[in-house]
Amino acid sequence: MPVNETFLHDLDTPAVVIDLDVVRANIRTFQAYADAHGIAVRPHIKTHKLPEVAAMQLAAGAIGITCQKVSEAEAMVAGDASIRDVLITYNIVGGTKRARLAALAEKVTLSVVADSAAVVDGLSKTFSGMPLPLSVLVECDTGANRCGVSSPAAAGALAVRIATAPGLRFAGLMTYPPAGGEAGVERFMTEAKALIEARGIPVPTITSGGTPTMMQAADAPVVTEYRPGTYVYNDRSLVTRGVCRWEDCALTVLATVVSVPAENRAIIDAGSKTLTSDLLGLTGYGHVLGRDDIAIDQLSEEHGRLISAGPIDLAVGDRVRIVPNHACVVTNMVDRVHVYDADTTSMRSLPVAARGRIV
Amino acid sequence: MPVNETFLHDLDTPAVVIDLDVVRANIRTFQAYADAHGIAVRPHIKTHKLPEVAAMQLAAGAIGITCQKVSEAEAMVAGDASIRDVLITYNIVGGTKRARLAALAEKVTLSVVADSAAVVDGLSKTFSGMPLPLSVLVECDTGANRCGVSSPAAAGALAVRIATAPGLRFAGLMTYPPAGGEAGVERFMTEAKALIEARGIPVPTITSGGTPTMMQAADAPVVTEYRPGTYVYNDRSLVTRGVCRWEDCALTVLATVVSVPAENRAIIDAGSKTLTSDLLGLTGYGHVLGRDDIAIDQLSEEHGRLISAGPIDLAVGDRVRIVPNHACVVTNMVDRVHVYDADTTSMRSLPVAARGRIV
Repeated sequence: MPVNETFLHDLDTPAVVIDLDVVRANIRTFQAYADAHGIAVRPHIKTHKLPEVAAMQLAAGAIGITCQKVSEAEAMVAGDASIRDVLITYNIVGGTKRARLAALAEKVTLSVVADSAAVVDGLSKTFSGMPLPLSVLVECDTGANRCGVSSPAAAGALAVRIATAPGLRFAGLMTYPPAGGEAGVERFMTEAKALIEARGIPVPTITSGGTPTMMQAADAPVVTEYRPGTYVYNDRSLVTRGVCRWEDCALTVLATVVSVPAENRAIIDAGSKTLTSDLLGLTGYGHVLGRDDIAIDQLSEEHGRLISAGPIDLAVGDRVRIVPNHACVVTNMVDRVHVYDADTTSMRSLPVAARGRIV
Repeated sequence: MPVNETFLHDLDTPAVVIDLDVVRANIRTFQAYADAHGIAVRPHIKTHKLPEVAAMQLAAGAIGITCQKVSEAEAMVAGDASIRDVLITYNIVGGTKRARLAALAEKVTLSVVADSAAVVDGLSKTFSGMPLPLSVLVECDTGANRCGVSSPAAAGALAVRIATAPGLRFAGLMTYPPAGGEAGVERFMTEAKALIEARGIPVPTITSGGTPTMMQAADAPVVTEYRPGTYVYNDRSLVTRGVCRWEDCALTVLATVVSVPAENRAIIDAGSKTLTSDLLGLTGYGHVLGRDDIAIDQLSEEHGRLISAGPIDLAVGDRVRIVPNHACVVTNMVDRVHVYDADTTSMRSLPVAARGRIV
């Protein structure tokens, strides 16, 4: 990766470093695929949590952004004037959150999802007094077994409830698909769409997401919109799955060796407070760039343990760059990231505006 | 636990809630044990990251605090005037960090550890120009296989190097022991102490730590000081190991059910961004208080999946309280915690002053 070594040298560690050139290329690649297949792009900001990067995604052709929580959406909207269309792919429950949602709806084009009558009725209660209706999509479980109605018939029934609820507008169908689940998405959504349209209700948007299968998004042609998140940075889990290469990973963790207590073992100053304990099915906690022989086999909060089959050939003070297992959770650990821009040969420290926004 | 339900009702979720009554009891219990055995207490602040709770630990009899990183120590010292004695149990590497260490040493009684000549020489370089020497302890590997010199002989050699280095003062020996490792600690430290004293160098402090075996600290009588961290809050990992009971857990995560997509499955609004992916050898991601039948079997960033063998008997909008697997990492996820004080029947929102302090 082309991050300037001089700038890296000036950073104290551990540090989360973002290479904007790689970010730009990643955004371009998926936008080009989506454009070629007539799919709208609505990136999930969970990966970067940076208004500036969302603005880059919008400038490249995205129609809006996706957030998971109301407080994330607030931080993003406050952070860049180009963010005018937000989908929150979450059941918003409780009067406090709905009041914040209503305030946000006065500023931007806003939509949310629901998978139960309880959520729909709560939203209707709050928005029936608002000048404009809130757009609500039905969340569908197409195999991930998380949230979502479990059948096209249930999706149809909930769509009718939304369409007839005061203060709400039925806006379509949403799913977070299981890995490789395009066939299931296509089947579920086609049937649900037909059921809903048969009742005279249009289905303007069918939105799916997930980086692992984003380059197969067109295999489910019923889908009109796609919401990838991790693609903007990529990570070890995606390289391991064959979705991208190490040089497509825009986020790395710079760490310093603080101890070499044995010939084949070194300790770095990045632990679970930076790399996180997320395994995503992998063995080990990240990839040391340029050192395929090293495994990060153990993390405590502030220590990462590196082991090698042979001599580890590292000394106290040496620095390593690590591609983490899961990029999204790493940006959530730090108040600031260090952004390198080859265009301007500059390194900037940016606050992670939507970090820790859990409500 | 006696947290007032009225106050909980007013919190938006997910929220990290601390019960100060339980905190006080936990602090008292270990301080009483340590006092009875003549062991000095130097709590590790990684668990709470709150100057106010550190002040409670000091008021109860602790001689100082333990931090892992320089930036943590800075935040704690800035946060409460009673914090005047800080041990950083970490190899401080690099000129930037050493300069911050020197600034901190002008404000409080400061000590650090080292496990290599490289670290000692770096510290000496910075502190040789300072008016007072920096206290440095030798970190010893007594079986945890993380940092630390690997033998008493190596500890002795490094102690001599510290004692003769300009700007430094040899202050003793430090270890983070493996679970149940008191016998190993006693053996290693006794031998190292004898070797160092035989060279005419006193060993004023031998410090060990870790909540799991804190009530066996006296089984290694060579140890003069103990550094428990998690004991202040406790967590599911400690309950599972038989170290404490659910009612001794001061930290809980309050969450709301946002979806009940199947009879035996519910989804809550707390995921890995709150509970974290830390397993600590356990199955599942936390314990739902009062619901032994429920397992938290899957987390994504903003969703927690609850499953039960029978009907889960939860509805959208219901709230649950969760004891996380690992309390320390949970406080690092949130900018604020909600502290309930039964003494004043009040709930306060406190900033987690040392959150995210990774450098």
